[in-house]
Amino acid sequence: MNYFSTNFTLGILGGGQLGKMMLYETRKWDIRTSVLDPSAEAPCRIAADNFEQGDLMDFETVYNFGKKVDVLTFEIEGVNVEALEKLESEGVKVYPSAATLRNIQDKGVQKQFYKEHQIPTSPFKVYKDKYELNEAIVRKELHFPFVWKSCTGGYDGKGVSIVRSAEDVIPLSEDACIAEKLIPFKNELAVIVARNPSGEVKTYPVVEMEFHPEANQVEYVICPARIDDAAANKARAVASKVSEAFKHVGLLAVELFQTEDDEILVNEVAPRPHNSGHYSIEASYTNQFEQQIRAILDLPLGNTESKVGGIMVNLVGAESHTGPVMYKNIEKILAMEGVTPHIYGKRETRPFRKMGHVTIVNKDLNKARIIAEEVKKTIEVISE
Amino acid sequence: MNYFSTNFTLGILGGGQLGKMMLYETRKWDIRTSVLDPSAEAPCRIAADNFEQGDLMDFETVYNFGKKVDVLTFEIEGVNVEALEKLESEGVKVYPSAATLRNIQDKGVQKQFYKEHQIPTSPFKVYKDKYELNEAIVRKELHFPFVWKSCTGGYDGKGVSIVRSAEDVIPLSEDACIAEKLIPFKNELAVIVARNPSGEVKTYPVVEMEFHPEANQVEYVICPARIDDAAANKARAVASKVSEAFKHVGLLAVELFQTEDDEILVNEVAPRPHNSGHYSIEASYTNQFEQQIRAILDLPLGNTESKVGGIMVNLVGAESHTGPVMYKNIEKILAMEGVTPHIYGKRETRPFRKMGHVTIVNKDLNKARIIAEEVKKTIEVISE
Repeated sequence: MNYFSTNFTLGILGGGQLGKMMLYETRKWDIRTSVLDPSAEAPCRIAADNFEQGDLMDFETVYNFGKKVDVLTFEIEGVNVEALEKLESEGVKVYPSAATLRNIQDKGVQKQFYKEHQIPTSPFKVYKDKYELNEAIVRKELHFPFVWKSCTGGYDGKGVSIVRSAEDVIPLSEDACIAEKLIPFKNELAVIVARNPSGEVKTYPVVEMEFHPEANQVEYVICPARIDDAAANKARAVASKVSEAFKHVGLLAVELFQTEDDEILVNEVAPRPHNSGHYSIEASYTNQFEQQIRAILDLPLGNTESKVGGIMVNLVGAESHTGPVMYKNIEKILAMEGVTPHIYGKRETRPFRKMGHVTIVNKDLNKARIIAEEVKKTIEVISE
Repeated sequence: MNYFSTNFTLGILGGGQLGKMMLYETRKWDIRTSVLDPSAEAPCRIAADNFEQGDLMDFETVYNFGKKVDVLTFEIEGVNVEALEKLESEGVKVYPSAATLRNIQDKGVQKQFYKEHQIPTSPFKVYKDKYELNEAIVRKELHFPFVWKSCTGGYDGKGVSIVRSAEDVIPLSEDACIAEKLIPFKNELAVIVARNPSGEVKTYPVVEMEFHPEANQVEYVICPARIDDAAANKARAVASKVSEAFKHVGLLAVELFQTEDDEILVNEVAPRPHNSGHYSIEASYTNQFEQQIRAILDLPLGNTESKVGGIMVNLVGAESHTGPVMYKNIEKILAMEGVTPHIYGKRETRPFRKMGHVTIVNKDLNKARIIAEEVKKTIEVISE
């Protein structure tokens, strides 16, 4: 198949920052793209050859969009799977597949999948609504504390709560949910696995994530993770097992816990480029977006090793600011060594809204970590 | 000045591959852009916020375009300088300035500039047309062999000839030209210098260029150049002197000869991102296009050092092929270590047309060089 400077068209469901960064790679290779997103102001509105505005959860919209492309992918899990299934049955290549997405979209189904495939994960129960959850608590089948997760729609800390008492149950949504055992862990890790239709598989190095204590969003992603080789190898092995079980095509970002006893547990996965892989744009031989394109087009996978150490800092809206965005002190961080900001192109900031990220690279990871803290202290995402 | 996710607009004259690669950086920082190019099929037609079709040499077109932007730059020297001068006089920031461009656009003026500024360059004479040139030959004031260069319009080996006999004079154009002494050199080198309006200056490492013997186009660009430190320091010093003399804003690519006696002579300069800096996208801490944006927006300049060794191979159309392009064996080079192709997006190939480039990076430059040869032997730019 000849993808380069031809009429071959890659369709992308979702036109947010992940799609936008994917478009750097399609532009680099002159691969024709068509993007569907509900917002006319989506970051992908330019740089795609064709942009359509429409509802990603609407069967007809997704189906009609998919009929006009040669390969269809997505940058967000919240898309109409029935439409993907129909498109697949009619010969459109959908990568990752509708089946992969079905196993991931619903967190209850995803946990069940791990159980069936003997993939280590924290013990859990699925409840079809809040009524069932309450009943389990009342009957003392479910004990505090536990981790509550909405089965659908949760991301960036939304749809996840640590429930320590009956009071914490009150604000939870009515939706189907899972309750997981709260397991003390010493590290939150992630491994990105790439797989193409020919079955070639490559894993990226293990990264370490530090979370913002209040917003429950990732604050630093550090590559490579500062863990010993045994733990890193174990994490990569578990991630490979997950990838093997899903037989996905494209990227699979596998989020992991390293427990106090050095067990590796799968937290959850995302079948797409992931926040934990943004460091790769500056640090890796093959960045995750290029790798995604290679994988879904069945091209050979690229080298996943790093040229230099990389740390990623999310740029989120400051707590008390809502309105037109201003990146205060951005010129100061640009003067720091190895610092690259990425601005997603959202005009309005809101508290904790993901507005961009900054990568800090350095041959010495410890130096990068010091500079990352400077970056964090210096730049502010405020409104004018 | 707040450039990021605002209505600030950067205007770019020219929408070819250099502009296209510059747009990766404006997208990364969400800087609004407007591009002017004569072709509706220009590689910049997407990814710019606004694209206009028009003649870059036409005063009114360039002037009217420039009036609508906040900072104006160009990715090609062939633009109407009078329009730039008028825009400058009316307060539009034009970087590099019209004055810099005036000193560079005409090769006779450029050589004269070096002479006046005691910058080492090969001896030369300027002739206002072919009649004068012929006369100098007949009067034995000018001796074979010499290097003939058209004063305007030459690039990529066009407008340059080595004249060894009266026969070689016949096909030369009627235009104003220079005749340079043919000096035997052992290396052709280049240094990119970045300078911002605040006067901050940074030089990139010296690169070494190998030319295709027939097409007179660069075949390999190797960073760092495989020359001794003394020669490298001398080359950087000469490039800095050139930059200081021009007081340019933005990038200045300085092409140099290293003579048999280890003299460094300036060949010519380009006031913009340059083919000899493409390796920087994958190999440098700050690629040349990001550096160009930093420089013209008076932001702090980024680190010009390399993460890894880099080699660039131009992808030019195969000799006997004209028509819709096909990149034969591109999947084979994608399987090689550290290989990144860039496809400029031209639908039609022609013999020796610049269609893209490939970067090969490796911690070991000698390994990169071996892989670069493999790449060169493997990929073919043909028509379907």
